[in-house]
This record gives sequence, structure tokens and C-alpha cells, in this order.
Amino acid sequence: MAAVFKKKIESESSGQVVNPWEVFVQDGEKIDYDKLIEKFGCQRIDLSLINRVQRLTCLQPHVFLRRGVFFAHRDFNEILDAYERGHKFYLYTGRGPSSEALHLGHLIPFLFTKYFQEAFKVPLVIQLTDDEKCMWKNLSVEESQRLARENAKDIIACGFDVTKTLIFSDFDYVGGAFYKNMVKVAKCVTLNKAKGIFGFSGEDHIGKLSFPAVQAVPSFPSSFPHLFPGMDNLRCLVPCAIDQDPYFRMTRDVAPRLGYSKPALIESSFFPALQGNNGKMSASDPNSAIYVTDTTEDIKNKIKRYALSGGKDTLEKQKSLGANLEVDISVKYLSFFLEDDFELEHIRKEYGEGRMQTGGVKNRLTEVLTQMVERHRKARAAITDEMVDAFMAVRPLPSMFE
Amino acid sequence: MAAVFKKKIESESSGQVVNPWEVFVQDGEKIDYDKLIEKFGCQRIDLSLINRVQRLTCLQPHVFLRRGVFFAHRDFNEILDAYERGHKFYLYTGRGPSSEALHLGHLIPFLFTKYFQEAFKVPLVIQLTDDEKCMWKNLSVEESQRLARENAKDIIACGFDVTKTLIFSDFDYVGGAFYKNMVKVAKCVTLNKAKGIFGFSGEDHIGKLSFPAVQAVPSFPSSFPHLFPGMDNLRCLVPCAIDQDPYFRMTRDVAPRLGYSKPALIESSFFPALQGNNGKMSASDPNSAIYVTDTTEDIKNKIKRYALSGGKDTLEKQKSLGANLEVDISVKYLSFFLEDDFELEHIRKEYGEGRMQTGGVKNRLTEVLTQMVERHRKARAAITDEMVDAFMAVRPLPSMFE
Repeated sequence: MAAVFKKKIESESSGQVVNPWEVFVQDGEKIDYDKLIEKFGCQRIDLSLINRVQRLTCLQPHVFLRRGVFFAHRDFNEILDAYERGHKFYLYTGRGPSSEALHLGHLIPFLFTKYFQEAFKVPLVIQLTDDEKCMWKNLSVEESQRLARENAKDIIACGFDVTKTLIFSDFDYVGGAFYKNMVKVAKCVTLNKAKGIFGFSGEDHIGKLSFPAVQAVPSFPSSFPHLFPGMDNLRCLVPCAIDQDPYFRMTRDVAPRLGYSKPALIESSFFPALQGNNGKMSASDPNSAIYVTDTTEDIKNKIKRYALSGGKDTLEKQKSLGANLEVDISVKYLSFFLEDDFELEHIRKEYGEGRMQTGGVKNRLTEVLTQMVERHRKARAAITDEMVDAFMAVRPLPSMFE
Repeated sequence: MAAVFKKKIESESSGQVVNPWEVFVQDGEKIDYDKLIEKFGCQRIDLSLINRVQRLTCLQPHVFLRRGVFFAHRDFNEILDAYERGHKFYLYTGRGPSSEALHLGHLIPFLFTKYFQEAFKVPLVIQLTDDEKCMWKNLSVEESQRLARENAKDIIACGFDVTKTLIFSDFDYVGGAFYKNMVKVAKCVTLNKAKGIFGFSGEDHIGKLSFPAVQAVPSFPSSFPHLFPGMDNLRCLVPCAIDQDPYFRMTRDVAPRLGYSKPALIESSFFPALQGNNGKMSASDPNSAIYVTDTTEDIKNKIKRYALSGGKDTLEKQKSLGANLEVDISVKYLSFFLEDDFELEHIRKEYGEGRMQTGGVKNRLTEVLTQMVERHRKARAAITDEMVDAFMAVRPLPSMFE
């Protein structure tokens, strides 16, 4: 771990650093989500909330909700209160297009948001922060925009409904009502405040400092006058990974001062690297993640070689002691992507009590991920430039609440 | 003088503070423009440069150029070199629309820019920084935009050619290529650098910190793809008051890193308050300035009561010693607005040598300004909303170099 992160971690009483650009814990530790919830001031999603979603949507809750992948929220209960009284809301999620190929962790917010869109019959705006990546990753404007369109294809391949979904790139979309809201937000956030929330330093450039306003304003329906005319009170629900929470803490702080509603949030834990639990997958190490472009052979090899095993060293030990499910990445991945609750429970039990070996679990995971990646690849191959244009066209969404 | 400014001035070795938001000198002092030129690193406009303008334009140079109102420049000679070789340029100036009524000081850059537009037959973009004023003056977006349109009428009344001039409001115009350039500029300016140039503090909000990028990018022709398609090398000349220099120092610093040409500048001194020389006119004290909305009676009274006189206390002393022309505001104002060089010289001589009294000079100034304000009022009254729309329409300028 680089010295700079060590220092940052030591300065955190919680022993972990989680912000939109860095997720790090001390060597050998894993993210303590209870501490994160406490530090950020959000709330845990409990069983009664999950049951309420089931009741209101008449659908079995998504695996990611049932199994605690989306585990924290802010005001999600208020969104449901209003929904029960007949008030709709809209969804806002996004992606920073920094790489061509997405890995499985990148798909999680989109797979979940697709379920929410279907289940609640609500519109969705997806922000591609090509401006952010141009600034942070030092990409050219053109390359950031190219990546945004490539990533849009992967997002569309998740199955979104074009009559309910706007995908927009900041470079294309910033202006007009959106820019006015950016200025209104920026007026309310001092440099000291931004430093406190995001940890900016004097060496950071002024583009980074002002970017939080860009990510904030899709939380306000008035930023999309063609979508939500006269619907300034429509509430916004943001599904995202919990490292994005600082942006929305700031947004929620500012909203009442602008006469706007606070966005509600539903937040996920991180999808771990193959090598273990202490962070989120990194796009910079191709062997830490399964990509949607990986071949069956790639997937098989990566899982075989890199997926951290909780099984014992010898067959004998494994049989007598069983696997440590807490650290086993194959079991963790299966808990994200194996939809059958009974099979998952069966594997956990057999593997945890020594009647199953790592090889068998990895084989099953390889099957599940191969199938998933294959399905994604086929769906993505069918996405044309015209379809991207259709999703990204600035237009009304006529059937957005149907 | 407020303590905070005293402190700032004491920290400046030059004993004066000049930046886009503050112009202050020590009590009893006046702005030392030589020191400013040295500190900012720009160049003085000398007689040979003025003669060159005359030769190239076949017009007598504008009073503001002949009399040193526009007294400093950056690379203006390069603009003329290229012009001589047949290469055109474009003009960029602007205004922060913070008040409804403009005073005479506000008109100076526009009157001068109009002359330049005519003399060189070049296009002009005028930026109305309604976003800046919304942030700095805590105006609502709507009020800033209203003021921008009101101010546009005063600007148009200066006589600009609609076939060569785009007036744009940031709130309307930011987006697309303009926003892309904003991001490119912002990437090149660290917080430390912005603090060094503009003196921002931790209590300033992030909107202020990022605004310099908004004022920078009209210096680049690619920010106006509908005006200057395929003319990315067209050079930009910015006529402005010298307090705007920090913005363009930053812009010139950044330009080569983006592969863009540096904007050239031609910079004016400040139009002094009626009460004296130590700063520029303030919109906050209505008795410090003559407004374009003032009646003849207002003008007469303000000059009579407030215009600092360099004349002697008694008629006798005035006759024997003459007036101190250096501090006399009426003479100073006449040097801006009395076009007849011979008459001005005559007044200076007679008044300075005691053969003319303050009253006579003030009467002449009242005539000159009344005539000027009357002309402006008539011109402004003829400006319709449709004309404002025409100047502010995003459109090509077909006859921009004719």
C-alpha cells in the first residue's frame, strides 16, 4: 500500500478510507460497513424495509436487496411513504467512463437500478461524468466522450427501457437549467467545506473543486426541464455504491437552501477484488476483476488462479474443519450472482462444513459468471449507435410513469 | 477604508490592491499605473504603437487611445503584425451585470471596442457574466439574467454592428464546446495557483474558484464553433480595464498547454469617482458617479457638489497660482469625453494658469456629459427586445470580416 494511503488511514479513527476516489483499509482488514454507516450518518436497510419493497412492488426483491449488497439508505422510507400515497419519484445513477471494458462491479448499480425501474415504474437519468474522468484521469475530451459512448452500450445492455431512461454525457448536457443549478449549488459550498468532505488539497485543480456541483444537480428535477416540466417537487432516489455518499451528503446539505427536496439514497457495499475483501475492484489491475469482455477461458483461469479461497490447505483439513466462508471470494461472488437462494445456501453449508472443496465452488462460480458475461456480451453486441443516440437524445419520456 | 482593505494594502509592497473585485490605494494616494504594469508584467502603449494603429486603420485613433486611457497591452503588437500580413482577429470584452443603471465608467470599454470593431472590421463577442454576479453579489439566477438583458440594451446603444457582434449571457451560453474549454482550462489551474492569482480564501465558495475558467474561454475561438468554424488559430484581442488582467494572465499561462493562442490585451486605466482619483467609480455610492440614467439636473448637481476641484480656494489665489490639474476631476473627465483636442488643451492651459475658474470648467463638463448621456438615452430607448434577441441569438456572423 502506498505511503500516502497508509498515512490517510492512520489519520482516520475508523482505520479505513472511503471516498469517491479511494477505498482502502489496513492490510489484512476488511471494510467495516457498520463504521461507515455511523461515520456517514446513513441508515441500515432492515428486513422490514425489504418486505415493504416486496409488498409495494408485488415482486420478489432483487438478490442485491435480499442479500444485503444494497445495505444502507437515506430517506428511502420517505420515498416509499410517498409512493404508497401515489407519489412517484425518479431514479438517478451514473458512471465515470474511465475505461473501455467494465468489470462486474461496475454492473452492480445498473443491474439494481434496472430492477428498481421495472419494479416501481419510474423514469431514470444516468449521468456519464466524462468531464470528471477528463479531469481526474487526464484523458482528452474526445477520449472521455468516446469512452462514455462505449460505456453507454454496456449500460443499455443491462436492459433499460428507452421510453423511461435518459443517458447523458456531461460534456453534451451541461448548460441551461443544468448549469444554473450547478451555479446555485456551488454558491452554497465553501472551499473549506469541500475540503472537509472530499479532502481536496492546494495541488488539486479548480476543475476538481467545482465538480461536486456537477454530480449534485441531477438530484434536482429542474435540471431536466424537458423531462420533468412543472415537477420541481418530484423526489429523486439515487442507487449508488457507498463511496459516492460524500457527493450526496453535500447535495442533501445544500438542497433545502435552494428550496429543493433532498435526494434519497440506496447504497451498496463494494464488490471485492478476486484477491480479497479489502477494497473494491480496481480497473488498473486486470487480474483483480472479471471483465464483461473476458472469454470463458479468461474467467476460468482468473477464478482458478486468483480467487482467494477460504478452503483449507489439504483435503483432510478441509474435510474436518470446513472452509472459512467469510474470506472466500468464490462464495462472496456467488452471493452476488447466483440467483437461486437454495443452491447458494446449499453450497455455503457443504463448503463450510467440509463436504465440498474449493475446486467445486470455483467451477460453479465459473459457470455462473460465464453465463452472465455471455448474456451481457450478446446483449451488448446488439446495441447499435442509433440505440445509443436514442437513449442519449434530449427528449421527453412519454411513458415514464407507466 | 475598511480594516480588511488596509491590511491587504499593507501586505502589498506597491501600496495598492488591484484585482477584478477590489481597487484600493492608501488614503490620499492615487493608482500608480507604472507599478501596476511592472507588477502584472504587461507593456505600455507608446506613441509608435498608436501611430501604427492610425496607419493601419486610416482613422484618427480614438480619444481613449490618443490620451492614454487605454495605456497598457499584451501582444497587441503581434496582433498588428498579423493584421498587416492580412490575418484578422476577433475582439472579446464583457460585463458583469450587477446593476441596472450603468455609469460612465462602464461605457468606456464598450465605446472603445466599438471604435476597434469599426476600425479593424472584425467580429466581437461580448460576455455578460450573469453567473459571476449571481455568485458574487448573491443575486438570484433570474435577477442576474434580467440585469444581463437590461445591460445588453445599454451596450447595444453604444452602436455595435449586429452583423459582427454576438452578445451572450453565461447562463444561456455555457455548454457544448464552451463547457469543454472550461474543463480544459480548469484542469490546468491548481487551487494554489488560483489563490495566488485571485487571492481566494477558504471561506470563498467553489463557484468563485471555478469562475476564472468561465471568463477565460471566450479567448479561444473554439468556444464559438458557430462563429469561427475551422478558425481555431484566429487570435483574440481583449479590450478591458486593467483590473481584469489577472483573468487573462491565467488564460495566457494556460493557452499554450491546450495548443491555443494566447489572447492579446489592450487595457485601460480606471475612470475615477467624482470625489477623486483613488480607485474606480463605485456602483454602490450613487453620488460617486454619473449614470446614463441621470437627468440633466442630476448631472449638473453631482458635478457642482461632488467633482473634486483642483482650483484654489479664492478667486485671487486661483488667478495667481492656477489650478492643480493633476487632482481636478472635471479636467480628468473632460480628457475622457471632450473630443476636441484643441479645446481640451485650451481649458487645461487657461485653468492651470488661473485664467479660468472651477465653475467654468464644471459648466463645460456638464454640457459635454449632458449631451453624451442624452445621446445614450435616446439610443437606448430605441433598443427593442427583438434587437436584444437578435444580438444574443446563437448564429453565424456572415459579414464579420467585411
